[in-house]
Amino acid sequence: MADQRVDILNQALPYIQHFRGQTFVIKYGGSAMKRPGVLTGVIRNLLLLKLVGINPILVHGGGPEIDSWLTKLGIEKRIHEGLRVTDKETMDVVEMALSGRANKALVAEIQRAGGKAIGISGRDADLLIGEPISEELGRVGKILQVNAAILTVLSESGYIPVVCSVASDSSRNALNVNADTAASAIASAISATKLILMTDTDGVLAERSDPTSTIAKLTLDEARSMVEAGRADGGMIPKLQAGISAVKDGVTSVHLINGAAPNALLLEIFTDNGVGTMITV
Amino acid sequence: MADQRVDILNQALPYIQHFRGQTFVIKYGGSAMKRPGVLTGVIRNLLLLKLVGINPILVHGGGPEIDSWLTKLGIEKRIHEGLRVTDKETMDVVEMALSGRANKALVAEIQRAGGKAIGISGRDADLLIGEPISEELGRVGKILQVNAAILTVLSESGYIPVVCSVASDSSRNALNVNADTAASAIASAISATKLILMTDTDGVLAERSDPTSTIAKLTLDEARSMVEAGRADGGMIPKLQAGISAVKDGVTSVHLINGAAPNALLLEIFTDNGVGTMITV
Amino acid sequence: MADQRVDILNQALPYIQHFRGQTFVIKYGGSAMKRPGVLTGVIRNLLLLKLVGINPILVHGGGPEIDSWLTKLGIEKRIHEGLRVTDKETMDVVEMALSGRANKALVAEIQRAGGKAIGISGRDADLLIGEPISEELGRVGKILQVNAAILTVLSESGYIPVVCSVASDSSRNALNVNADTAASAIASAISATKLILMTDTDGVLAERSDPTSTIAKLTLDEARSMVEAGRADGGMIPKLQAGISAVKDGVTSVHLINGAAPNALLLEIFTDNGVGTMITV
Amino acid sequence: MADQRVDILNQALPYIQHFRGQTFVIKYGGSAMKRPGVLTGVIRNLLLLKLVGINPILVHGGGPEIDSWLTKLGIEKRIHEGLRVTDKETMDVVEMALSGRANKALVAEIQRAGGKAIGISGRDADLLIGEPISEELGRVGKILQVNAAILTVLSESGYIPVVCSVASDSSRNALNVNADTAASAIASAISATKLILMTDTDGVLAERSDPTSTIAKLTLDEARSMVEAGRADGGMIPKLQAGISAVKDGVTSVHLINGAAPNALLLEIFTDNGVGTMITV
Amino acid sequence: MADQRVDILNQALPYIQHFRGQTFVIKYGGSAMKRPGVLTGVIRNLLLLKLVGINPILVHGGGPEIDSWLTKLGIEKRIHEGLRVTDKETMDVVEMALSGRANKALVAEIQRAGGKAIGISGRDADLLIGEPISEELGRVGKILQVNAAILTVLSESGYIPVVCSVASDSSRNALNVNADTAASAIASAISATKLILMTDTDGVLAERSDPTSTIAKLTLDEARSMVEAGRADGGMIPKLQAGISAVKDGVTSVHLINGAAPNALLLEIFTDNGVGTMITV
Amino acid sequence: MADQRVDILNQALPYIQHFRGQTFVIKYGGSAMKRPGVLTGVIRNLLLLKLVGINPILVHGGGPEIDSWLTKLGIEKRIHEGLRVTDKETMDVVEMALSGRANKALVAEIQRAGGKAIGISGRDADLLIGEPISEELGRVGKILQVNAAILTVLSESGYIPVVCSVASDSSRNALNVNADTAASAIASAISATKLILMTDTDGVLAERSDPTSTIAKLTLDEARSMVEAGRADGGMIPKLQAGISAVKDGVTSVHLINGAAPNALLLEIFTDNGVGTMITV
Repeated sequence: MADQRVDILNQALPYIQHFRGQTFVIKYGGSAMKRPGVLTGVIRNLLLLKLVGINPILVHGGGPEIDSWLTKLGIEKRIHEGLRVTDKETMDVVEMALSGRANKALVAEIQRAGGKAIGISGRDADLLIGEPISEELGRVGKILQVNAAILTVLSESGYIPVVCSVASDSSRNALNVNADTAASAIASAISATKLILMTDTDGVLAERSDPTSTIAKLTLDEARSMVEAGRADGGMIPKLQAGISAVKDGVTSVHLINGAAPNALLLEIFTDNGVGTMITV
Repeated sequence: MADQRVDILNQALPYIQHFRGQTFVIKYGGSAMKRPGVLTGVIRNLLLLKLVGINPILVHGGGPEIDSWLTKLGIEKRIHEGLRVTDKETMDVVEMALSGRANKALVAEIQRAGGKAIGISGRDADLLIGEPISEELGRVGKILQVNAAILTVLSESGYIPVVCSVASDSSRNALNVNADTAASAIASAISATKLILMTDTDGVLAERSDPTSTIAKLTLDEARSMVEAGRADGGMIPKLQAGISAVKDGVTSVHLINGAAPNALLLEIFTDNGVGTMITV
Repeated sequence: MADQRVDILNQALPYIQHFRGQTFVIKYGGSAMKRPGVLTGVIRNLLLLKLVGINPILVHGGGPEIDSWLTKLGIEKRIHEGLRVTDKETMDVVEMALSGRANKALVAEIQRAGGKAIGISGRDADLLIGEPISEELGRVGKILQVNAAILTVLSESGYIPVVCSVASDSSRNALNVNADTAASAIASAISATKLILMTDTDGVLAERSDPTSTIAKLTLDEARSMVEAGRADGGMIPKLQAGISAVKDGVTSVHLINGAAPNALLLEIFTDNGVGTMITV
Repeated sequence: MADQRVDILNQALPYIQHFRGQTFVIKYGGSAMKRPGVLTGVIRNLLLLKLVGINPILVHGGGPEIDSWLTKLGIEKRIHEGLRVTDKETMDVVEMALSGRANKALVAEIQRAGGKAIGISGRDADLLIGEPISEELGRVGKILQVNAAILTVLSESGYIPVVCSVASDSSRNALNVNADTAASAIASAISATKLILMTDTDGVLAERSDPTSTIAKLTLDEARSMVEAGRADGGMIPKLQAGISAVKDGVTSVHLINGAAPNALLLEIFTDNGVGTMITV
Repeated sequence: MADQRVDILNQALPYIQHFRGQTFVIKYGGSAMKRPGVLTGVIRNLLLLKLVGINPILVHGGGPEIDSWLTKLGIEKRIHEGLRVTDKETMDVVEMALSGRANKALVAEIQRAGGKAIGISGRDADLLIGEPISEELGRVGKILQVNAAILTVLSESGYIPVVCSVASDSSRNALNVNADTAASAIASAISATKLILMTDTDGVLAERSDPTSTIAKLTLDEARSMVEAGRADGGMIPKLQAGISAVKDGVTSVHLINGAAPNALLLEIFTDNGVGTMITV
Repeated sequence: MADQRVDILNQALPYIQHFRGQTFVIKYGGSAMKRPGVLTGVIRNLLLLKLVGINPILVHGGGPEIDSWLTKLGIEKRIHEGLRVTDKETMDVVEMALSGRANKALVAEIQRAGGKAIGISGRDADLLIGEPISEELGRVGKILQVNAAILTVLSESGYIPVVCSVASDSSRNALNVNADTAASAIASAISATKLILMTDTDGVLAERSDPTSTIAKLTLDEARSMVEAGRADGGMIPKLQAGISAVKDGVTSVHLINGAAPNALLLEIFTDNGVGTMITV
């Protein structure tokens, strides 16, 4: 057992040598986030990345957390074209659930595992500046500008930055932004090597109805045509778009992996085959 | 008008020279916090301190914000010996209201005014580690340890740290701590020059019934005997205790000032007479 | 009074935010220089600039000081085309009066007010290297080269550099250079944001005979045509030329203000209207 | 297999967190050194230590290498009280074999595996200064002084220092010093956390005749009495003495492990039970 | 000739190795200062010290320069107990002659020889703060405090600081201080290794009437008793006192050498016998 | 004598000012290397360069040392087209003699003279990476890549790097490279100002048979045509080629000087005429 452990540590050596000093933006979210065992596993993976010299930046949303508080408060959830209609009252709950609950839960988990984390919102230090997408969607925003200096300050001081997907508009009022999009924008702004989007499925499927048909690799063009041809699953489209945008902006590779699969993060980084779907130029 | 402005700038010169490079911990909270004009004024004062070379650290609670969400959620507010009984359900709301609402509102206000702020909780980077006070009070905690390195990192990188009064216990679960106490503990830990506690009154009164009887200066011994003799107002007792503790730990002076009074912060720092009550050795 | 002070400090906030970290070259000289109240006021303004994060560099001449010593020594003052004919004997007195008297008087005044200043000559560290203008004028020089590294060393170490208008020729013998020209050359060499020339009048007059006809703003072209058309006052011409040269070399704005007017320096920097005449591209 | 790998990486996490930033002095030598598979394994272990933030310093001797060259050169090997009698002619061969062969072979192996190594002798930068032990033993030396600054320079620049056991006397002539002793002296001088002595056996035996009687832990006193009572094996005595000396000088723990056992280095560091014998206060 | 040059460079090697990185305070003054050849020689010596890694600080007075200007101005020179009675009018001339003439002449000479120098007064950055000695002597001062930070800033930025012997009183008015005393106070304040006082004679004489009776070495006690017993020459007494004070404050050695003797500075530093008189503990 | 010494130090001043902060690569080798007086002289010259602020890097071969060990070991020396045929067995001896003997002897000599040196091989830190020239010559290599970062680390930490002419191939096996070529490649890689090749003759001769016909200066074109026209002596050809290559790559000047001539190094650097032959663009 112990022999096996060190043997395997040895096998990870070339991967560690390769990725040392690079920055990975990792988006964690979705339904798997509530399962404690899953969270613990992801955090341990994250700490190991930090310890071997990779700089991880964690970005998260928190749909289920938001839904739960809306229900408790008796506020109706409304969806328009797949996006949460976010009036002022809903925005308050969104920000509260993300910045005040999901963000601090992740930070506490990292600290509990012996790491050092700082939880911030996209509103801190004007990290994410955006504008509303449309009048119908209220405070749903798109990102116009990323001021990433604070992430470098925190990373270089030894902390893991944990960022929730809330932005400010130019008047510094809160906007509800998609977490995949936020992660992609941050990855582009800091020239990350990898953008890793954790989802509830094992990657992009060749056949929507066949859960075993995961596509291992997509070029930028293939990913684009999947989106344009409508061949991708509805929930997968914004993730693919986030990935396409990051690769176009110079991020070396984007990975769509199943966040609930044990050790998906390390498997992706420390083995040749990886897991899920990888998008590259 | 313009002549007057520069004339007065000139008069502030010796005060600026004196306090340059020092750290002030400023606790902002209570009922005045909701009034927009008040908030804007305090923030402008804060930015000016930062610009003339003082390092302010803002600590805040948020009782009214918490109460408002408890009401919306139909959770009963219970007080035991002057402290909010904080069961698990209430703790969730406390953290959410402080970390997710009050904290980000302050950060947004600073960014709006052209400053640079990072909002964190006492749980980030294990800044505040504590333990429950008693079984009856549930998650109400006292502070055992302060890990203030993150505050130095943020201050030296040009940001104003904004800290809300939530701590972690040793298992990294959330604790509800008093904001005055949190500010005092932080001021002690980083050897701040000043701890400024903003309240809803003009300082400590010689006669409780006489709002004009503000005491300008108290020695450590005088402050102690006021608390022991029960001469201080109930709401003032934890503030006096926070102040006594900080002065005992080496903070040069503690100031209890009325947060709602226009420019109270600058008046305290840039004039000879100051405002409110000052406690020193 | 105290309320007013802090109110006004607050109003200066956006100006301070704007100019923080920038370098201003300020030329102080002329007949106002001997009046003690004026000097004290300028120095206080200067210290305030330094304290709010602006890097001021003070450049000065000292005609009256020179004249006074020439008289005492019984040396005749001779003017040729508006410039002081400077034979070797006169040059000795010029350098002595500037480097040994005017320069140290300014330094002492800054130290007296609680600032930190270092008085140097353009000959120190080869700051100003020039050559004689003509045989008739003797040691009157024009500037060929500025070695400004010492100014950065002093500014970054917290000192205010005070520079007198003496230069060296290539054999390192002293040259008498115009202080406006020296300030302009230094401002160009270090890419200063502002060059502020303090004079004995309120700026450039539209009508020479009307002291209230100050022109608030001049473009580079307007300034040039005023000089070429001979519309400017004789004493104003070298100042206009110094300003034109600096703006041409990239200095953002040049200001001609009345050094004897109370707080002219702060009024210029911390109010919208400013005082005197501003030249920009 | 891949799953297993990352699972095991996760298990090493607390050990990595614990030892990060510490310095380990590792002595590698003896008969196992010639076996290529063994060398490769040790080097991979070493690189992993470096990558997870531990600073390893490798110290080595090279008896078999020396013997082989003495034989080729027809020089007789003489042993006096367990030590190699080292006349001038033999010293030349010792230095040549260690600095010129064993040292560079280790460096090449590290570079081959993707690491960065610098091979030096104890004579470089006066790292090891000593004097002859006795006239009979010729150039056999004991260490009087360690100048370890070069090791810090190399470690902090990202290199693994590889040091061979040759010292200089005060005239800077070469001395043949014991590699265990050299490693111990270096560990003491730089306040290393661990000194790891790789040997040809599995540690200290309770019964010399029973190779399975390895003692897991020895206190300083127990180690001393084993040496004094003559209960330790002859070849083990200098190693025990090197270990005793290091622990006495403040090194936290000394480990005697079998260099030929696969992954002995990682097993010692990344598992609870370790391997071989550990000496602590 | 060329062979000889490099041979001799080689001989200076151990001295350079010994003094590298140390600070020497060198006082240059007196009648020899006016002779151009002497000045050139001293400056070249000074530059060589700087180039081989020694940090020289030059301190100077300028009696002859002062006398010459007093004469030109028709101001009577008055001596009281060996010191120049310095009324306000005389002080103006003293400061002007030292800060404005002697100081800049030395700076120009260093720049001419390819070095980098900054000339300052003891009034710059409050380097020398003192008070008047007595009412009779007017502005003659003694030194109470040395703020030497500026000297370190200049030395570490590659400049040779050149300091003239003018101080400020607590109101920042000029004081006339003895240059030997100023050099001694500076040497003490910055813990210089050597204080070198250049004089017009070859050191301290055993027999006042015998110019060849130079004493090579004096202990602190011997130097004291020479002063107390009145055996020293009048002009030598303040120099001996300056030397005694510096050695008492921790300066390793004080040297009284003849500034007019060719290469006295290098001879003192780069040869075993030195020149002049050395005072040590 | 002492007077003369300092006089001459003074004369070296402008040369020291000129070369300060520059890097010189100096190749020392050949038959003169064994003579102790010569070695001592070169080392003293080297230390003086380091002390006056030049960064010397010493590169060496060691033909006689190698030959002597081959003879002792009874291995036949074979030459093919002027190069040593280096089978595996010979390569072992070459590396051992260079890295283990010649390199450490030079380091010891520098330490003995009070300097600080680190002896490395071209295999350390992959400094020199090459490939075999031809099958006939075995392990004789040419250089493909220079990784010079370690040289900067060592130089900036105050050490003199001493490099022996052994390289690694891409599998990190040893290669025997020409020391002149290695020095040239290193000089090109680090943009050295000078490459100084020490030889056994006084430079390039105009007439091979006339040892007094040393050519003082060669342009790049002249040097090329000497090689192409076969006018250069056989032993001089690789040195000329090394020089041509360095000048072509941007090294300012290459010097071929007689290493055995007393103080050749200093004469070259600190006198106008220099010694030997200089190649420039």
